[in-house]
Amino acid sequence: MRFDIISCQPDLLDSPFSHSIVKRAQQKGLVEIHIHDLRRYAVNKHGQIDDYAFGGGAGMVMMIEPIDRLLTDLKAERTYDAIIYMTPDGETLNQQIANQFSLLQNVVILCGHYKGVDERVRQHYITHEISIGDYVLSGGELGAAVLADAIIRIIPGVLNDESSALTDSFQDGLLAPPVYTRPADYKGLQVPEILLSGDGPKIDAWRFEKAVERTRQRRPDLLGE
Amino acid sequence: MRFDIISCQPDLLDSPFSHSIVKRAQQKGLVEIHIHDLRRYAVNKHGQIDDYAFGGGAGMVMMIEPIDRLLTDLKAERTYDAIIYMTPDGETLNQQIANQFSLLQNVVILCGHYKGVDERVRQHYITHEISIGDYVLSGGELGAAVLADAIIRIIPGVLNDESSALTDSFQDGLLAPPVYTRPADYKGLQVPEILLSGDGPKIDAWRFEKAVERTRQRRPDLLGE
Repeated sequence: MRFDIISCQPDLLDSPFSHSIVKRAQQKGLVEIHIHDLRRYAVNKHGQIDDYAFGGGAGMVMMIEPIDRLLTDLKAERTYDAIIYMTPDGETLNQQIANQFSLLQNVVILCGHYKGVDERVRQHYITHEISIGDYVLSGGELGAAVLADAIIRIIPGVLNDESSALTDSFQDGLLAPPVYTRPADYKGLQVPEILLSGDGPKIDAWRFEKAVERTRQRRPDLLGE
Repeated sequence: MRFDIISCQPDLLDSPFSHSIVKRAQQKGLVEIHIHDLRRYAVNKHGQIDDYAFGGGAGMVMMIEPIDRLLTDLKAERTYDAIIYMTPDGETLNQQIANQFSLLQNVVILCGHYKGVDERVRQHYITHEISIGDYVLSGGELGAAVLADAIIRIIPGVLNDESSALTDSFQDGLLAPPVYTRPADYKGLQVPEILLSGDGPKIDAWRFEKAVERTRQRRPDLLGE
């Protein structure tokens, strides 16, 4: 899967894509990530890519022309399955959307900044608008990193132990049950005895019960309650 | 405001905190960010901080001891208003929560990894569990960066133009209206005429109408509909 990420703060994206699972996915050849500096397509030699909003008001707006020209260059090279704009008023990302995106081949992610992009970009170039949650960030870069990470880790072959992703929260519509590791007694804090019993079926039943209990307490909406 | 972020992949956090608004907030002395490598508190010379889950199953669990020792060191230096654990089954972050956190002085953010932390850490050390959305990431670092960014940008004095944050999506319970910038005609794509009219009150009314319209179309839940 290939990601082309368009940003006016490309340095922000250095470290999230050069460590851990995302780095390994690239080394395995399962994922390609290309980060494009929008300023290379600025409208003048001062590097301008934004301007004041028509009608007045605080905050700058990203201009249509640099984005149009960069997208035109990208589309001349390959076909894109999705041109995604990260924006707080987009569709809220969830695990199902991440699963669906993980089946695509080529995607563009446009990171918004300032007050956002000129509405004509959204109307005529963007195919999907995605929000990572109901809060505002200083730019779309962290959103793009979150979206890419959520997608990349579920691409088959990326995680070493694929069953690990299948037992994550949300994949089965339940929150994950509590987990414990050594030592069994830490300053008097004990691990539940059943987990030390070695009785596999009982442990599975306990975990399912705890997952349902936690989901009911914290996220009854996931159970349709 | 001071952030102490605990991570077993601290390099991941390099670039999000060294650019843009978060960097400026630190330069202005409004924010301090300290990133702590959990491996410095490993239980042995091999740097071990995680172990297999009691009861079996795929994925590693972060151990209680290194976290306990690191938190003990931090708490010896100052009082913390919140010790936050980033986890997909935590309370879902929204703008109201970000606003509330922005009033605190000292917070710890613990980044989960692998299958998460030993449940005893959550029960006995953590004061707030926060999720940035209904999806699973390869670690809590991006979540911590998102949470910190959402908080930092609304600390008074961080943004140069404070009215900019007040007109963001969610701050008034509405999505933001569309924005446009130069040129007014781009390859035949036009800006709405009213924005070129110079009639301030009419433009304000148009923006409010569009904000309500967009919220009704995309997020009727925000209007209680």
